[in-house]
Amino acid sequence: MPQISHRAEILPASPIRKLVPYADAARQRGTHVYHLNIGQPDIETPQTFWDAIRNVDMKVVAYSHSAGNLGLRKGIAKYYNRIGHDIASDDVLVTTGASEALQFILGATLNPGDEIIVPEPFYANYLGFAGLIDAKVVPLTTRIEDSFALPDAEAFKQLITPRTRAILICNPGNPTGIIYPQETLELLRDIVLEHDLFLISDEVYREFAYDGYVHRSVLGLEGLEDHAIVTDSISKRFSACGARIGAVITRNQTLMGAILKMAQARLSPPGLGQLGAEALYQLPPTYFDSIAAEYSARRDLLLERLRAIPGVTVPRVNGAFYAMVQLPVDDTDEFCRWMLESFSYKGATVMMAPGAGFYATPGLGKNEVRVAYVLNQQDLYEAMECLGEGIIAYQKMKSLAQHAAGQPT
Amino acid sequence: MPQISHRAEILPASPIRKLVPYADAARQRGTHVYHLNIGQPDIETPQTFWDAIRNVDMKVVAYSHSAGNLGLRKGIAKYYNRIGHDIASDDVLVTTGASEALQFILGATLNPGDEIIVPEPFYANYLGFAGLIDAKVVPLTTRIEDSFALPDAEAFKQLITPRTRAILICNPGNPTGIIYPQETLELLRDIVLEHDLFLISDEVYREFAYDGYVHRSVLGLEGLEDHAIVTDSISKRFSACGARIGAVITRNQTLMGAILKMAQARLSPPGLGQLGAEALYQLPPTYFDSIAAEYSARRDLLLERLRAIPGVTVPRVNGAFYAMVQLPVDDTDEFCRWMLESFSYKGATVMMAPGAGFYATPGLGKNEVRVAYVLNQQDLYEAMECLGEGIIAYQKMKSLAQHAAGQPT
Repeated sequence: MPQISHRAEILPASPIRKLVPYADAARQRGTHVYHLNIGQPDIETPQTFWDAIRNVDMKVVAYSHSAGNLGLRKGIAKYYNRIGHDIASDDVLVTTGASEALQFILGATLNPGDEIIVPEPFYANYLGFAGLIDAKVVPLTTRIEDSFALPDAEAFKQLITPRTRAILICNPGNPTGIIYPQETLELLRDIVLEHDLFLISDEVYREFAYDGYVHRSVLGLEGLEDHAIVTDSISKRFSACGARIGAVITRNQTLMGAILKMAQARLSPPGLGQLGAEALYQLPPTYFDSIAAEYSARRDLLLERLRAIPGVTVPRVNGAFYAMVQLPVDDTDEFCRWMLESFSYKGATVMMAPGAGFYATPGLGKNEVRVAYVLNQQDLYEAMECLGEGIIAYQKMKSLAQHAAGQPT
Repeated sequence: MPQISHRAEILPASPIRKLVPYADAARQRGTHVYHLNIGQPDIETPQTFWDAIRNVDMKVVAYSHSAGNLGLRKGIAKYYNRIGHDIASDDVLVTTGASEALQFILGATLNPGDEIIVPEPFYANYLGFAGLIDAKVVPLTTRIEDSFALPDAEAFKQLITPRTRAILICNPGNPTGIIYPQETLELLRDIVLEHDLFLISDEVYREFAYDGYVHRSVLGLEGLEDHAIVTDSISKRFSACGARIGAVITRNQTLMGAILKMAQARLSPPGLGQLGAEALYQLPPTYFDSIAAEYSARRDLLLERLRAIPGVTVPRVNGAFYAMVQLPVDDTDEFCRWMLESFSYKGATVMMAPGAGFYATPGLGKNEVRVAYVLNQQDLYEAMECLGEGIIAYQKMKSLAQHAAGQPT
């Protein structure tokens, strides 16, 4: 049998999706599964999306422009103008989700063996996207005790080598929920200018900022016209994950030209999703206010219920809809699987994403999980109750197992 | 300014799309453009697709399974069963068009620097997909005089090195229109078994076979269970290019496991397109008969009209909806651009894909173009009339230019 490629062999399974078979089995046993593992909001996709889809007036669902329909690109540019950035439709290229945007960006900026510095914990699939092009993710560790704030410039500089080509941040943070303050962005600007690096910012959670925190885009940093690249998406912003519509935003026209060649090779982004997306970008800004209010209330509930569980640590969370949570267990890979395989409470269990998959440094995150607060408050309340009971039952099971093995507890 | 990656720099622009700005400019001047450059059929997407889209009953357009909705995978497996292949839904992974299928397959089989043998002329974007993962396309030249038939095993063996990992064919052929006979497939089987290579077959044009030619899939070759990989798509089969729904089909579960990890990293294929695709796979086989009859008639018209133009050579074409055509000009890159920039006949011009972009060997294909017969017969007739006039005008222009420069004609 022919060998598969090395990159395919070492590609880590997604921590967000690898437990899916166990969740499927739990459902087949009749157990309800609260999905806190994946950033799939339960918020309804706005009606205007469905109207655009249902009223589609085409005979042929044809390829679109490789960079995306001009109407959608103009709509996205206008959205950026409204939030204060001088972006033209030529600075926007529509992609198949932010996933493809990142693949294009990494493919256009990193050679095989090149390095990209990413604060960890990070969105696990960054590893997969870098792995596909044989580039190396160099993690910059941030700590739950610091609410995952970035360290100082010195910490970055210690990681920069002649192979370093870019820094990639996620802001607001998946999985951390952090929103970087202006001084952090300015620190990053100084570093990338000094070392002539790209600064790639995943801003798909831009509208999810709570407690008066204001999200700032790298597009607003002066002097970074050629360095700043934003990856964006309608998935979270408009609760339209399945439409698979994202975008690359950059003023660097050389880079955009290279990315357009990649985009042409794959012909075009999804046609129907683009129709819906164009309608979504016509929504008034007040739409985001109502959604942010709902997520903010969920976050309040989540933090309150998590902190009521003995042994659980959860840092400050000001944005996105995730929290990295420390649990009183040794190995969340095992615990999350056990929750699906062996536990239920009131006929239900909770699915979370084990933390280790969000770190590149071996050994980190083993007692953490990523929780996505994408369920309504009632479900979230019940999921937290279930998690609390699960932790107690798991600790009891482990203790009994250790007794049985004659080990001291 | 930071450097873009080497692979992005050397990535060739798509020969199918690189002339788009000139076509846009022609349209702005009021010139109608007959698009024979791109495999975008004018055949209507079947009503069942639109019904599925218009009757969508969802509140949230959510991520699907990373391998695609089970209903669609079952529908695709059933289609393969019907055409005689023992394929289960687990052997099918739904992708964002055949483009993504090929990216997954190449990414899972080729390391950087590995080689893949591809008969040329080939679908130009294979170069782009291989380039993205820094693998090397090794062309095996086939000739228009032979109607692009594959040479014997010796020709393959001369190209095989320790870095060779796979052979990639397109059958029915884009851009050649060839359908490989059973003995060619068996020759390929023997080669890949002897050298333990993957045999990747792009079969998106499977249903487009004329004159009693029968398409045979590599899935039907015994002994290739671990070697054969098919890339498929609804784009051409159902005239649904913009839906961006393709698939990987393989019985090699190790390979499929690796591809699933890649698929999980990008979350899911387009949701709305999958809905439409599931409906399309319910269509009866008679659907394909009516479509093939239409393309066959177009092909007849195309070949007749092309052969009536002095100096034009066009080989036998039995499948797909393309022909590689030799024109009486020196450089089709220049000629195709001139047709868009400087020529019109009865208010219209013709856009074709210059041939050189379909070859990896420098210098080949310079007097060829790929023509996609995706327009109705009336348009096709007019496009051929326009092309004939264009060739005469171009030759006259070139002759005058040479006279003016004092060169002998």
